[in-house]
Amino acid sequence: MIRTPYLLFLGDAPDQLAAKVAQGIKDWRPENAVGQYRMQGCGADLGLADMDLAEARAAGAKTLVVGVANRGGVISPEWKKVLVAALEEGFDLASGLHNLLREEPDLVAVAEATGRALHDVRVPEVDYPIATGRKRTGRRCLAVGTDCSVGKMYTALAMEREMRARGMKATFRATGQTGILITGGGVPLDAVVADFMAGAVEWLTPDNDADHWDLIEGQGSLFHASYSGVTMALIHGGAPDALILADEPTRAHMRGLPDYAPPSLEALRDLVEPIARVVNPQARVVGISVNTQHMSEAEAAAHVAGVEDRMGLPATDPFRFGPGKLVDALADF
Amino acid sequence: MIRTPYLLFLGDAPDQLAAKVAQGIKDWRPENAVGQYRMQGCGADLGLADMDLAEARAAGAKTLVVGVANRGGVISPEWKKVLVAALEEGFDLASGLHNLLREEPDLVAVAEATGRALHDVRVPEVDYPIATGRKRTGRRCLAVGTDCSVGKMYTALAMEREMRARGMKATFRATGQTGILITGGGVPLDAVVADFMAGAVEWLTPDNDADHWDLIEGQGSLFHASYSGVTMALIHGGAPDALILADEPTRAHMRGLPDYAPPSLEALRDLVEPIARVVNPQARVVGISVNTQHMSEAEAAAHVAGVEDRMGLPATDPFRFGPGKLVDALADF
Repeated sequence: MIRTPYLLFLGDAPDQLAAKVAQGIKDWRPENAVGQYRMQGCGADLGLADMDLAEARAAGAKTLVVGVANRGGVISPEWKKVLVAALEEGFDLASGLHNLLREEPDLVAVAEATGRALHDVRVPEVDYPIATGRKRTGRRCLAVGTDCSVGKMYTALAMEREMRARGMKATFRATGQTGILITGGGVPLDAVVADFMAGAVEWLTPDNDADHWDLIEGQGSLFHASYSGVTMALIHGGAPDALILADEPTRAHMRGLPDYAPPSLEALRDLVEPIARVVNPQARVVGISVNTQHMSEAEAAAHVAGVEDRMGLPATDPFRFGPGKLVDALADF
Repeated sequence: MIRTPYLLFLGDAPDQLAAKVAQGIKDWRPENAVGQYRMQGCGADLGLADMDLAEARAAGAKTLVVGVANRGGVISPEWKKVLVAALEEGFDLASGLHNLLREEPDLVAVAEATGRALHDVRVPEVDYPIATGRKRTGRRCLAVGTDCSVGKMYTALAMEREMRARGMKATFRATGQTGILITGGGVPLDAVVADFMAGAVEWLTPDNDADHWDLIEGQGSLFHASYSGVTMALIHGGAPDALILADEPTRAHMRGLPDYAPPSLEALRDLVEPIARVVNPQARVVGISVNTQHMSEAEAAAHVAGVEDRMGLPATDPFRFGPGKLVDALADF
């Protein structure tokens, strides 16, 4: 686990989009975001207090999180100065960059000398077990997509927030680097060795109270040729009771696969239910999350209503219309 | 690729079963098996010429293959003497042991000094790409099992032999350590990082002649909670035209999962076809391979006939009755 709360490092982010990881932390775990650290020329602003390292330490921050993409895939000398100073100030460092912190000899040396931790959340830090398929206590919900990057993480985080607001027991379980940085822990599933994928998801979603819901972050798609094995392991390791179908209806082809059309929601439902029932016979699709970001308000409302009608299941865009209907479905499960 | 042919190291194998990797090489690639090296107390015998290192070199052997399991998971001092001498004699070493050759400092030092290679076939030696889903030329066949360890590798190797005997173009593509040692190359799929699994299988089965068949070694099972993600990646990376269902009908539960009953052949067929058609719309099940090792001859014949009748597909036990019917199905595809 990464120690919280965080100082969010925005560096010299050229614009707001480059700081989307930091934005995600601030949006979903504001209690983890003590302040922001911006360098000269930074074009992003999260609306948090600007702090230097000493101020952030005084305010209680324990980890400096690199919440920004690095230009050219390289940790620049300007960044390096701040990261080294942060270690010396007593911060751990956490990052989801491709360019790993642990591959920088100076950061490794200073971290060792100061006794601080370097967290590269792209890389597993745990020796996961082989999955056992054993039935666990508690309930689990997983969003499965018609494609990658259709809003599965957003759906799970929005549902968690709504469930907690209603007094339900719910925990978002991160399976990707952004989710891990947001919550401070999880499994970087796409970097786990094949034989241990399902076991890693079992490890992530252990026995719990009978009325507790794990909201497992989805990955990939059963219909995505590059990543479907990851999705499969997530379903069989997670053993969800409730499945949510996630769709982005304006997409012309599968992400990164120009020759592949996205499947229909019907095809996804018909494939995922028998797969999920291999490990959990009561698994069923309980709702649909539609990402309507490329539609007008009127188009979005009409589309969502049409999906509900066609599929006979509650549907919503959790960003635009809130996740209430999906939470209702879990409450009624 | 591992340089062939081999000297097969049987060490101090207590019995024939402990040398089953060496047996597989001798059975399926006899042209790769120049001789056997047995230490004092060896209880296994492949019926090959016993050779010392110099004799095997003179006979053309280029790699010493550890074809035996090591007791206690440790490379003993007695083994070590032979392995070091083999490097000095000019052999490469290849092994599928959990205890990696590359983790033995003395072997690494001698290999570097002599310029020889250490092949640990459990560990990928290639940086595999992300799968593209691009349609490749040539034909592909994959056996998918109701469970793990039901005879998928045997089926593919037996089909390859029969196809070559008939003058068909066929290549067995190894995806596990035994298959890699038998053929000298392949992908240790269970050790590949999640994001690259399907890409590794695409890499293994590239464009080929229109009338060439890749016989891809199957792994795991879509119904096995621990390994189904590996199977999924194999189907979407391999993009098979022809699927063979593989079954061991006397098994009481899934291997290693006492609470899971194996699926019916109908359930496997109904799940695998839509999955395979995501990447290859013409994919279909063309036959069934039944492992009847725990049945009498009469029971086996009756069972196979019953499966054919029930499923409306050619069925055989390739070990007991030969793979001819399955090869006929590919010839007619």
